[in-house]
Amino acid sequence: MELEVYLKERKAYIDGILKDFLPDEPRFGKKLYEAVKYSLTVGGKRLRPILCLAACEVVGGGIEKAIPVAVALEMIHTYSLIHDDLPAMDNDTLRRGHPTTWKKFGEATAILAGDALLNRAFEVIADSSLESELKVKVISEIGRASGMLGMVLGQQCDIEAEGRNDVSLEELEFIHRHKTGALITASVVSGGIVGGGSEKELKALRGYGQLIGYAFQIIDDVLDVAGEQEKIGKNVGSDVEKGKVTFVTFYGVKGARKKAEESVNKAIEMLEIFPVSKRELLEKIARFIVEREY
Amino acid sequence: MELEVYLKERKAYIDGILKDFLPDEPRFGKKLYEAVKYSLTVGGKRLRPILCLAACEVVGGGIEKAIPVAVALEMIHTYSLIHDDLPAMDNDTLRRGHPTTWKKFGEATAILAGDALLNRAFEVIADSSLESELKVKVISEIGRASGMLGMVLGQQCDIEAEGRNDVSLEELEFIHRHKTGALITASVVSGGIVGGGSEKELKALRGYGQLIGYAFQIIDDVLDVAGEQEKIGKNVGSDVEKGKVTFVTFYGVKGARKKAEESVNKAIEMLEIFPVSKRELLEKIARFIVEREY
Repeated sequence: MELEVYLKERKAYIDGILKDFLPDEPRFGKKLYEAVKYSLTVGGKRLRPILCLAACEVVGGGIEKAIPVAVALEMIHTYSLIHDDLPAMDNDTLRRGHPTTWKKFGEATAILAGDALLNRAFEVIADSSLESELKVKVISEIGRASGMLGMVLGQQCDIEAEGRNDVSLEELEFIHRHKTGALITASVVSGGIVGGGSEKELKALRGYGQLIGYAFQIIDDVLDVAGEQEKIGKNVGSDVEKGKVTFVTFYGVKGARKKAEESVNKAIEMLEIFPVSKRELLEKIARFIVEREY
Repeated sequence: MELEVYLKERKAYIDGILKDFLPDEPRFGKKLYEAVKYSLTVGGKRLRPILCLAACEVVGGGIEKAIPVAVALEMIHTYSLIHDDLPAMDNDTLRRGHPTTWKKFGEATAILAGDALLNRAFEVIADSSLESELKVKVISEIGRASGMLGMVLGQQCDIEAEGRNDVSLEELEFIHRHKTGALITASVVSGGIVGGGSEKELKALRGYGQLIGYAFQIIDDVLDVAGEQEKIGKNVGSDVEKGKVTFVTFYGVKGARKKAEESVNKAIEMLEIFPVSKRELLEKIARFIVEREY
């Protein structure tokens, strides 16, 4: 199957089920519910859930088991975007081609909508029909990737780096390994856990996740310089405007693309322990990450 | 034992172990770590962990099993205070007698420190040595109480009610059942779960938790009008200043105190299924909640 078609289908499928994992509308405070629903359904590539489901399949699991975990990952990703966009953080007004949550619902509700999604993510996993043992493994994996050893730490470092021109390559890599890489890696690994992957398989998936996560961030930096606003759905050129040191600062656009390609090639090597027929999809997703225009 | 002594000892014990549940200081982004540590250790009654441990004991469990859950509850409580204090929310500068987290570390770091603590809470439970089955039950209980069906929803409603003088008693009770009551109830119930309580025992603990949670909030409202700033450690009179409808608005100071007492008496009735020797502590804690001056 063509990857484009596959990604579209999976995205449509995930778009369709996300709302099913929200609770009923409350008696009071409906605006919170509206803000959560808006943020979760306004769009996005759904890369993390797609990776989770694909990783579940590569180890031989059925995707229905991974669905609550995939949904939880998208909830966590969405919460992080809501908080990152806040005036006190990146102060962004446009995301996925629409007003950011705080711009539409106000700052207080945006902070709370993020909090709500983070809580809900763990609740969705805990309340799923998975075996308790697997739930706990996945919650531990995702909690670490999302929290103060992962994504939250990465965002903190990113803010501290802003406007400084003395950011070293080591620091930049640390930022992105945590800010973007950790949750992408956890998406792949948790899919593998749910699918019943062996230790060896989970190790390969972890390596794959780290390498595509790295490539993903490099391409994000490239697109901020060389992408088209319409396709990306957020303001282009904002990194330069904010005086941010990015991978493009160190490698230039061409050099950065090359780095991303190298990383994706290594990621694909990691998949060699899986049967050719099964690994094809994760290979294609890896290539898509460097070739994407949005 | 005198309750005062008991509470002091338990508080000191909890104060002493909280830091053990934080990860090592990171290579970059140390300010996040500092903000988390500051917020978590700056003080507080530690009521939620104390309730969790006491509920574990009332059903016959050993407290060592409940400790990670108790720590997680204090982390979640602390995250909620950090976010509630933000300029976009309650805009408070003083908490527990010290500058609020955003006042000391800036808004961005405060938002992230809250996020970090919420993530860490679930991670701590998932990584504890409890049986997987119990971990999942506790995560589900706490996630629901803390999230968009619980505390987060309550805070949203509280913000929406601010400045409005048409808040009904129904709405006010809805706010506080979610904002304060839910996590207090979850603290008691999760202690009971970890201690191996029966369905009947958990039901009694849930009723107890809801009733003391209600009383707790009423007394909070009373103290905001009639308390001493020095003892409370936060600005007194802030509700009136913000034009907030509170339980004092409906019942007056004396009437509100009476309501709280009635609720606590009912809470104590809930405990009758437990042996007299064992339930004494939860009874005393319930009475403390209405008698406290801070």
